[in-house]
Amino acid sequence: MYCTDMALHTDKYQINMIYAHWLNGTHLKQTVFEAYFRKLPFGNGYAVFAGLERIVNYISSLKFTEEDLSYLATQEENYQPEFLELLRNFRFSGNIYSFKEGALCFPNEPLIRVEGTIMETQLVETALLNFMNFQTLIATKASRIKRVAENDILMEFGTRRAQEADAAIWGARATYISGFDATSNLLAGKVFGIPTKGTHAHSWVQIFDSEEEAFDIYARALPDQVSLLVDTFDTLESGVPNAIKTARKLEEAGKRLGSIRIDSGDLAYLSIKARKMLDDAGLPYVKIVASNDLDENTIFNLKAQGARIDSWGVGTQLITAADQPALGGVYKLVEREYNGVMEPTIKISGNPEKVTSPGKKDILRIVSKESCKCIADYVCFPHEQQARTGGNLRLFDPVHPYIKKSVKNYEAIPMLQPIFEQGELVYDLPTLEEIKAYHKEQVDMFWPEYLRKLNPEIYRVRLSQEAWELRQRMIEERLSVHEIIEE
Amino acid sequence: MYCTDMALHTDKYQINMIYAHWLNGTHLKQTVFEAYFRKLPFGNGYAVFAGLERIVNYISSLKFTEEDLSYLATQEENYQPEFLELLRNFRFSGNIYSFKEGALCFPNEPLIRVEGTIMETQLVETALLNFMNFQTLIATKASRIKRVAENDILMEFGTRRAQEADAAIWGARATYISGFDATSNLLAGKVFGIPTKGTHAHSWVQIFDSEEEAFDIYARALPDQVSLLVDTFDTLESGVPNAIKTARKLEEAGKRLGSIRIDSGDLAYLSIKARKMLDDAGLPYVKIVASNDLDENTIFNLKAQGARIDSWGVGTQLITAADQPALGGVYKLVEREYNGVMEPTIKISGNPEKVTSPGKKDILRIVSKESCKCIADYVCFPHEQQARTGGNLRLFDPVHPYIKKSVKNYEAIPMLQPIFEQGELVYDLPTLEEIKAYHKEQVDMFWPEYLRKLNPEIYRVRLSQEAWELRQRMIEERLSVHEIIEE
Repeated sequence: MYCTDMALHTDKYQINMIYAHWLNGTHLKQTVFEAYFRKLPFGNGYAVFAGLERIVNYISSLKFTEEDLSYLATQEENYQPEFLELLRNFRFSGNIYSFKEGALCFPNEPLIRVEGTIMETQLVETALLNFMNFQTLIATKASRIKRVAENDILMEFGTRRAQEADAAIWGARATYISGFDATSNLLAGKVFGIPTKGTHAHSWVQIFDSEEEAFDIYARALPDQVSLLVDTFDTLESGVPNAIKTARKLEEAGKRLGSIRIDSGDLAYLSIKARKMLDDAGLPYVKIVASNDLDENTIFNLKAQGARIDSWGVGTQLITAADQPALGGVYKLVEREYNGVMEPTIKISGNPEKVTSPGKKDILRIVSKESCKCIADYVCFPHEQQARTGGNLRLFDPVHPYIKKSVKNYEAIPMLQPIFEQGELVYDLPTLEEIKAYHKEQVDMFWPEYLRKLNPEIYRVRLSQEAWELRQRMIEERLSVHEIIEE
Repeated sequence: MYCTDMALHTDKYQINMIYAHWLNGTHLKQTVFEAYFRKLPFGNGYAVFAGLERIVNYISSLKFTEEDLSYLATQEENYQPEFLELLRNFRFSGNIYSFKEGALCFPNEPLIRVEGTIMETQLVETALLNFMNFQTLIATKASRIKRVAENDILMEFGTRRAQEADAAIWGARATYISGFDATSNLLAGKVFGIPTKGTHAHSWVQIFDSEEEAFDIYARALPDQVSLLVDTFDTLESGVPNAIKTARKLEEAGKRLGSIRIDSGDLAYLSIKARKMLDDAGLPYVKIVASNDLDENTIFNLKAQGARIDSWGVGTQLITAADQPALGGVYKLVEREYNGVMEPTIKISGNPEKVTSPGKKDILRIVSKESCKCIADYVCFPHEQQARTGGNLRLFDPVHPYIKKSVKNYEAIPMLQPIFEQGELVYDLPTLEEIKAYHKEQVDMFWPEYLRKLNPEIYRVRLSQEAWELRQRMIEERLSVHEIIEE
């Protein structure tokens, strides 16, 4: 959806680099790039990978339209016509490997690996990061809320505060992957099959002469599981008593009021009082929905205070990931073709965490056969067999090499799946329900200490000995050319 | 652009309220809604209105497709077929009045007024807020950066960290309105005609054997005003010296190096040193571009420290409005048809700033004929003539009524422009350059104290006496029915 005509959804420097490589005769050299992030958002212990379906749609339909080419011809770079002809015939013909959507993922492990000519690997960087960064961010935020809400019903209500339409729609999808039950956005419902939910607005009540009349008319129109917003005038003095009256009329018609929604005031106090009023009125089945700037922290505290809320409508804080609205995913060159052979590359930085890990890498998730829980992610080269065959594995911490962990009796699950091979889509995109189920299975494979909201235990991501040694060697080689000088 | 098939980009409760009104026979009753925000973002003294072009495109193409209707038919609400028929024939036929894009705007004044049947005013709420909230937010953030950067060149570089594609593209447009000079996003360039800029990535340098070779090849390919990224290895030890060598080769070919870009490290220190190196090398014309998580605060501080930066590439912090990633714009019912006559409505809340101002309102911007500066925004009913005719005007502060200000010799500029009348577009959409120029004129009409980044003076937004009295009377009437009880 919305993925056609996106060839120009890229940074200009990508086109300029491709142009310069083309003039230099190097645009068809092979390269390998890896996309990853360096730091988990929200202080969380994991992230939830998302964005792949959008990326697949983007790559599959990637071509320059005549309009795109006419536009490029107007640019001050004055691209040669033969270059525009090259773009006209461009199709992505490389390989892409990726985590599956819904997988838990961690810093400094490649989530997507792109192999192809310089031309194709550079062109796709910007859009790929744009999609991965946002959708992974929102799936992660939603997952934090899901951990806290547990089995309560979660609804995504953020469209009006989302950062434009795509964010609302793809964001709703990301929340569904991580365990949300529904969205208010009908377009997301139509496109992705997500269940949609909604109550009514304050304006519904304002437009009638009384709240009681407004409730009765709404319940008559939508008699099955209707939800009534009770805080237009006064929740406990007016809204809940009127909702109870409406519920009784529904009962006379053989129907049941679904829920009431509280959207302002102290949600703990009001929900406890409302619960008692509903129970006293013989309406224990009527659920209580809360909304109003909720996030994992407010929900956690409301539950700790004994709030009697069954269902949470979460908006702004979720759909914008308000406490950290960007995931800093990057896309780095790890191998280049040199004299016909692929060789690893490294990017050095005075900032140690920005030094890249050279060479094309796989990720193996090491799962204990005893506990069925994940022990570590093992980052190794494709030719390394040790972990794949279940051989004794030594995990060591590169920062504190004296900390070693020896693992046996494990399964090693490859996390990077082939998605495109030589430009052909070789991956069957799972349904959204399958992604959601896969995510749930994945969460269950982690000990709770990695999943908690505050100060989670840090999950191990470990380079293989060989990958670590190559990195060390290349750092030293580079430093022999350019010493990093502390300023 | 991207505005077709968006009828379902709305919250489900809008459709359910329309359905319930239809069953009740009230869906064609006339209503007036106003969109506004209650609080300025970022502690700024003003916001920059944006989003209208997108809203116009949305309203103009608003219709339910057969696919939309088939989808709605599957919903658990079990809408009657006649209702879906009503939607099939739906077109927006109401009136919309709006601020112009680029206008400065303030809390609690209607930025968009929508008049029409309940059916049409409810349907458009969600998308209208989604577009207005995001684009106004980003235009405001960009304006803060523009105030600080003054005449330096500003480039929007945020696509990879934007909240999905629409945010990148419409966000780039919003930054251009507020004074940015260019974007890196080529799609925004193509669609909106925004100038596009780009340098090159670290991967460009990594792929060659040496930085010097990489610079030479890039400069040869793009000899006019090329920009070289100098921090791949070491800015002062390697990058700047190599850029100087390349600049000299360009000079031999009769060309000039455009700029160098610094993307890491201490930008103040590095830019001062680099400036000196470039000047000493006889290259005073080579500009310095800085990037790396910039916002108005870092730019302000870097300039205060004497950084020698000519051009700023601003990414994540801007395109996500990271310090406040949502504008809380709301859409409230202010009039409803009752027995064939329009009457004002109010929404009361225990939270005083959430009490609405009843009645359909205009905004007059009161501008001194002496200083040509804005004095206040005057919120009054359409029939009120006092301010329009330039008559003596008393502005009073509703919270502190003893503070009165008397104004004469002013011009009263109506801020709400007719956009749609009876469903017809009656507004000539200005070009983006016109919007940008209009914004600049508007900024010049405000004293600097309203424009400063920190603790700006609060600009006056004042209800007319009549509008204020109606509000007070309706609050009292409401309270006679439901007292607000402090909990």
